Amino acid sequence: MKLRHFLLGLSLSATAVSFAQNQYVNPMIGTAAMGHTFPGACVPFGIVQLSPDTDTIPHNINGVYQPRVYEYCAGYKYPDKTIVGFSHTHFSGTGHSDLGDLLVMPQTGKLKLNPGTADKPDNGYRSRFSHATEKATPGYYTVMLDDYGVKAELNTTQRVGVHRYTYPKGADQRFILDLNHGLYNYDGKTLWSTLRVENDTLITGFRLTNGWARTNFTYFAISLSKPLKNYGYQDLQKSNYNGHWRKFPINRNFPEMAGRKMVSYFEFDNADQELIIKVALSATSAEGAVKNLKAEAAGKSFNQILAQAENNWQNQLSSIQVEGTDDQKAMFYTSYYHTLINPSVYQDVDGMYRGLDQNIHKAEGFTNYTIFSLWDTYRAEHPFLMLMKPQAARDMVMSMIRHQQQSVHGLLPVWSHMANDNWCMSGYHATSVLADAITKGANINKDEALKAMISTSNVEYLDGMSDYLKLGYVSLEGSGTPASNTLEYCYDDWTIYHTALLAGNQKVADQYRERALNYRKIYDTNIGFARPRHRNGSFKEPFDVKQTAGEGFIEGNSWNFSFHVPQDVYGLMKLMGGEKQFVSKLDEMFAQDLDPIYYEDNEDIEKECLIGGYVHGNEPSHHVPYLYAFTTQPWKTQYWVREIMNRMYRNNVEGLGGNDDCGQMSAWYIFTAMGFYPICPGSDQYVLGAPYLPFMKLSLDNGKTFEIRAPKVSDTNRYVKSVKLNGQPYNALYITHDMILKGGILEFEMAAKPNKTRGQKKTDKPYSLTD
Amino acid sequence: MKLRHFLLGLSLSATAVSFAQNQYVNPMIGTAAMGHTFPGACVPFGIVQLSPDTDTIPHNINGVYQPRVYEYCAGYKYPDKTIVGFSHTHFSGTGHSDLGDLLVMPQTGKLKLNPGTADKPDNGYRSRFSHATEKATPGYYTVMLDDYGVKAELNTTQRVGVHRYTYPKGADQRFILDLNHGLYNYDGKTLWSTLRVENDTLITGFRLTNGWARTNFTYFAISLSKPLKNYGYQDLQKSNYNGHWRKFPINRNFPEMAGRKMVSYFEFDNADQELIIKVALSATSAEGAVKNLKAEAAGKSFNQILAQAENNWQNQLSSIQVEGTDDQKAMFYTSYYHTLINPSVYQDVDGMYRGLDQNIHKAEGFTNYTIFSLWDTYRAEHPFLMLMKPQAARDMVMSMIRHQQQSVHGLLPVWSHMANDNWCMSGYHATSVLADAITKGANINKDEALKAMISTSNVEYLDGMSDYLKLGYVSLEGSGTPASNTLEYCYDDWTIYHTALLAGNQKVADQYRERALNYRKIYDTNIGFARPRHRNGSFKEPFDVKQTAGEGFIEGNSWNFSFHVPQDVYGLMKLMGGEKQFVSKLDEMFAQDLDPIYYEDNEDIEKECLIGGYVHGNEPSHHVPYLYAFTTQPWKTQYWVREIMNRMYRNNVEGLGGNDDCGQMSAWYIFTAMGFYPICPGSDQYVLGAPYLPFMKLSLDNGKTFEIRAPKVSDTNRYVKSVKLNGQPYNALYITHDMILKGGILEFEMAAKPNKTRGQKKTDKPYSLTD
Repeated sequence: MKLRHFLLGLSLSATAVSFAQNQYVNPMIGTAAMGHTFPGACVPFGIVQLSPDTDTIPHNINGVYQPRVYEYCAGYKYPDKTIVGFSHTHFSGTGHSDLGDLLVMPQTGKLKLNPGTADKPDNGYRSRFSHATEKATPGYYTVMLDDYGVKAELNTTQRVGVHRYTYPKGADQRFILDLNHGLYNYDGKTLWSTLRVENDTLITGFRLTNGWARTNFTYFAISLSKPLKNYGYQDLQKSNYNGHWRKFPINRNFPEMAGRKMVSYFEFDNADQELIIKVALSATSAEGAVKNLKAEAAGKSFNQILAQAENNWQNQLSSIQVEGTDDQKAMFYTSYYHTLINPSVYQDVDGMYRGLDQNIHKAEGFTNYTIFSLWDTYRAEHPFLMLMKPQAARDMVMSMIRHQQQSVHGLLPVWSHMANDNWCMSGYHATSVLADAITKGANINKDEALKAMISTSNVEYLDGMSDYLKLGYVSLEGSGTPASNTLEYCYDDWTIYHTALLAGNQKVADQYRERALNYRKIYDTNIGFARPRHRNGSFKEPFDVKQTAGEGFIEGNSWNFSFHVPQDVYGLMKLMGGEKQFVSKLDEMFAQDLDPIYYEDNEDIEKECLIGGYVHGNEPSHHVPYLYAFTTQPWKTQYWVREIMNRMYRNNVEGLGGNDDCGQMSAWYIFTAMGFYPICPGSDQYVLGAPYLPFMKLSLDNGKTFEIRAPKVSDTNRYVKSVKLNGQPYNALYITHDMILKGGILEFEMAAKPNKTRGQKKTDKPYSLTD
Repeated sequence: MKLRHFLLGLSLSATAVSFAQNQYVNPMIGTAAMGHTFPGACVPFGIVQLSPDTDTIPHNINGVYQPRVYEYCAGYKYPDKTIVGFSHTHFSGTGHSDLGDLLVMPQTGKLKLNPGTADKPDNGYRSRFSHATEKATPGYYTVMLDDYGVKAELNTTQRVGVHRYTYPKGADQRFILDLNHGLYNYDGKTLWSTLRVENDTLITGFRLTNGWARTNFTYFAISLSKPLKNYGYQDLQKSNYNGHWRKFPINRNFPEMAGRKMVSYFEFDNADQELIIKVALSATSAEGAVKNLKAEAAGKSFNQILAQAENNWQNQLSSIQVEGTDDQKAMFYTSYYHTLINPSVYQDVDGMYRGLDQNIHKAEGFTNYTIFSLWDTYRAEHPFLMLMKPQAARDMVMSMIRHQQQSVHGLLPVWSHMANDNWCMSGYHATSVLADAITKGANINKDEALKAMISTSNVEYLDGMSDYLKLGYVSLEGSGTPASNTLEYCYDDWTIYHTALLAGNQKVADQYRERALNYRKIYDTNIGFARPRHRNGSFKEPFDVKQTAGEGFIEGNSWNFSFHVPQDVYGLMKLMGGEKQFVSKLDEMFAQDLDPIYYEDNEDIEKECLIGGYVHGNEPSHHVPYLYAFTTQPWKTQYWVREIMNRMYRNNVEGLGGNDDCGQMSAWYIFTAMGFYPICPGSDQYVLGAPYLPFMKLSLDNGKTFEIRAPKVSDTNRYVKSVKLNGQPYNALYITHDMILKGGILEFEMAAKPNKTRGQKKTDKPYSLTD
């Protein structure tokens, strides 16, 4: 234990033990380079992520308008020198920007209503800052705003962001509320904003944005710890409307404000240096925001809310106890932390929420969630939540089913947030999440779920689906990414097949079993790779298996995607010519020296993120290291997963070897640290790798505990010699969800050399649709 | 009876008698020149006014951007040669533009998604038309769209506009839904629109506009009589957003559309020539619009809905029966028709409505109304509704009280529509409407009303109020229209005084009695006119009593406004030096020859609208002809009111001598035709003039009837010789509301010469605060 942890423990003596896990969380991990995480304050699954935005202003590069759509997904980049302000909503780890709603920035001195630029910060309201004054812990963020001498502290509840600003003695006290600010803030993103000063300590309003969420309503209610003295606004975009009849000024101390690019300010008496601002969000109405404010934050001090947030995190995180180095613990608990940010609760305290149809609904019998980055998170994030937070995981599935019922397309979410779907990436992987939850016993109506899944898998205008339904594959004429689409669709179809079996619907099961085998149709056995086809059946010519762009795949080349048949690994193996060719291809992928021409133009691949041709930062590879478990050489999984853990996850700001993608990278880390991974969500199996840490204890939702012991594990002792489950030898290369739920101890004997005899029997092998 | 009326009667034999009044309504009255009425279809107090818009495109005049804010208030100008389309919301007779929501236009042939211009109609989707094919009756409008050969027919329910288009045989069938179109359609008025094709016969969506209503949500649901074949849209404003991830086209046959300036199209099979489109509105949600659609229009044919609308109008209009020439009947029933359009019901069928706070409320115990042009309508429109439609009038008052309770300013409506207040014109005349309703026995909580009135009359930042509260008058430094503001505020204060008396609150009554006498403070007895003052007490120099602009008055010069003390005519008379001076000033006003320099730059005054210096088109004069009743020469009222009736109201398209102003001009007509007028709403008195028609019978809401007989009345016999009430001689120069409610007969003996002895006693005179 480091001294600072010890001291922190002392200072919180009453709760010292229970704060053990929180201490290890380092929200700064991933805030530089590829991680795209944010350092600000949030609580588990909260809709508020109150975090500093550094430089989000679009850049005009060579006359071409360039919003920073990729770089600033989380609003904050560690290398930046200025903070624009603190906004209330952030994606955690995505590869595309949006949100950044309701930027608040304290200010003293001259009134400035534009943010200024990074190179000329004095021209605007932004402030310089130093990392020396910055601290981020679960539920808390603080920094000194050097230009103003204001100490900023942030914490949150689920729906309320709380700001505490300590102004210099005697200085003017003001804050800016910039309703024009946003992430991916292209010109015109904010369509309209309103503000009502209800009284001298309460402000309400909304803004409507057209960003990645096409039509996004953010209502809010803001309470102030002391009365307003003066306030006003400027609309940075002049309206062409000149028909106003008002015969009195409305820009200052007029309590009803509105505009396209409205930046407002609020001024206070400075007798007391401290100002606390509570900003409640709602997607339904200002009334809803006031309700949320009252329920979660009214009458509570900053410190009370902070204690709540810290306890909340601690309660969540302490459900897994681990042993390891401080860096390992930091990486582990930060990963756990990152898995609990998105998806986020998207409803008022009374259950009212904005549905995908933009109508206001009441969530009956579930809590409504949003921010589903499903192309990423179906793989490990949702299975992980299903294991450790099954109630939330079940409610997320309910939210997806309601989404489908509200969808004019009849589609389950693809990439959805804030009552919109942007249909980002490919596939309809919500079916995987539904299937996984049903397989693992969640309280979901199977028939309702199956209906939603079937509807989703038959929407002809979805990227290449009409081809797929007719031909069994998406053609080059039908989509820009026909080969990966086909592979993704047919895995999703397997999840429907599997759900139909569980629902006792053999007819649907038979139909989707056929579809689940469609991957065969785009497999070119002559070259041994998946390869896009034309509508007439011919394969793409010319074709480069190493090229990601333009070859019919998305975020992956044919090398990566050719392994994307988690539902039928043995079927795939046969297509590849048998185990020997399969293993040799896996080996080659990890070993190959990928020419930079294959990634240097790709914003989400950097040299450091590659292990041969394996790209951990892009999700299609996430199950690949585990595929050795289907072969006679499962120890290669054990080797590579530790390699990936060591190289792609580090306890520093650049510590994530790819976008965290709403917890997917982190969930991969946790599963892999446990020694197993759900390579085919929807099945009840986890494929065994090797534990990363010597000890781990899961406190499950059902009251049972499950320990994973690997006392001798190390970089050297990375191979599994033998396994015992509850003291009995265990030879299979997978465990099931039920085994974990029953509680017990999974003990790994680790060794410096592979055990080449373990798990060789057919019955030791994981699930595959065909043999 | 004209032949066509006779034939119409025959063809509708079953209901022939009950359609007697409808036949006389001529919705074309006022559609040219100053009236600003629309010819389209509506039902009493309906939120839908489905009407053709002719040329509403903003004009670039000498490089200056000029939306047609005044000319096109109703969307339609009779002299225009083209129709852009049919939109669903219109003010009736205002002097400022807004609305024009959801323009629908049938189309055949080439797809055109912009409206084109009046001079080059072929460049856009608009069509030429001829008045020969046009017909407008209560609840119905039809016209042939010559460019397409499409016959358009329109009718409505309260919340649903119904279109029947008959396409040429074999022609392509399409309609345009232009969500960018609007009245006062300055660049950027529409902030955002969405469309969802729920299925092949149902479309939903909303648009948000920033017009005169600052933040205006219009949700809709559109049902189609036959299935869609194809559809799509174009956003005429390209978005700067370039972060879309969608890998499939969304501009055609994709059921989720959105944009800033979205123009959409919908195409149909042409086997059947007829297409019926039902467009339901809601301010709360698309769900609300669907509810309204189902409740009011589902399963009903165009003809059934038309019969409902016609019956509705007939039921309303037949409550007053009159005798007179066809032109007189046309003018009378068209006036009645115009009094029943605005205000309009603003809630869903289940009572849910958008409040001024932009939250969704449920109207409990009342029906929520909007479109309150109160500077105009407090004078005669609301008193008229209080007489003939007391339940609606009471609900309007309830709507105003709720508005006040939802107002962040604590203000009753000034000029409000669609959950916004634009604070147009001056005063807080809603207090007058509340007082009038309470005086006349409406079921209103007096204390709640008084509270709302007091709050309204003390908002310091309202145009000059802080002066008024401190000095007793609005100063030249405090407002651009300080003199008229002072006069209007102090009348409004009288209505609060009067309400306080009725509520038994003597303290408030005393306070507001003082305020009601404030008019004295801006009266310059040296010149005998109201005159603006500086904050230091000195009168404005120089000062022109005939000039409207820049002299401290609004829509009226000092000549007009100096008589604006309806609450204390005798007090005013004293200030003017006594009756002789008062009468001589009234005489001079009607007689003077106003130099064109005093009105030629004023868009709402034309030469023909003047009678001397009396400007009937501007409301501040409306009570003035009745002021003779307070003098020994009441016959001059009898002379001038007939003169105004003849000259300002004519049964033709140019037939209104001023903006109808949401029924105020029409209500003036009806009261004056009855022979009396509420010069001081809030009192229970109507001041007598002289009936315009020989016979009128009011069927009151309480089941009683009240007849007004003047058998010999004519332009010659315009003077009242004697009056009998229920057979008894009646000498007073006023009647009370109660006298009417009791039912009976008011009989006027008319003569060619004034009776100079009638009504001379003090007890014959109408109410005045002081003697």
